[in-house]
Amino acid sequence: MNESFKPYYAVIFTSIQTSTLEGYAEMAAEMETLAKQQKGFLGIESARNTVGITVSYWESLEAIQQWKQHTEHVIAQQKGIRDWYAHYHVKICKVEREYGFDKRS
Amino acid sequence: MNESFKPYYAVIFTSIQTSTLEGYAEMAAEMETLAKQQKGFLGIESARNTVGITVSYWESLEAIQQWKQHTEHVIAQQKGIRDWYAHYHVKICKVEREYGFDKRS
Repeated sequence: MNESFKPYYAVIFTSIQTSTLEGYAEMAAEMETLAKQQKGFLGIESARNTVGITVSYWESLEAIQQWKQHTEHVIAQQKGIRDWYAHYHVKICKVEREYGFDKRS
Repeated sequence: MNESFKPYYAVIFTSIQTSTLEGYAEMAAEMETLAKQQKGFLGIESARNTVGITVSYWESLEAIQQWKQHTEHVIAQQKGIRDWYAHYHVKICKVEREYGFDKRS
């Protein structure tokens, strides 16, 4: 393992949508913009087919907690539960190792 | 936090494909079937738009390491690097907390 690797945190958000998606795309875009402005934010990746997976990366558990409690984000979560999501699951993870491959490098 | 929560591990695999996808879908299906048969496997979720995200869940780091070194999986990884992926990134994470919401429950 690379001894200089500094652990960080990932939030794995998986969801299945309802058929009531009015306002969802706008809110999702707004929340992504807002997340990027938060202290401790490191990155975000999303894909959706039947299941949607969004993984966001954060410097600390405190940063994740603050984002969870952000007023506008709380409103979005409530709308999500009421209208947009049939199911969601959140996993808070510590990233312990990583490696990759890039054809351009 | 739920004191009875037993930590487990997540492998976040993100990728961008090339345009050379011959054989990819078959191999991906085969690897998913094979992964499910491995000791310590807990689950897998995938979605792809521009970026593909596959998250697999495992009981231990040893189970992840064994799956990484599985002969058929090594062959798939080599084909992936040679043909199918322009880029990929693997993050090994410890799941420390989780919660969810289900409209059916």
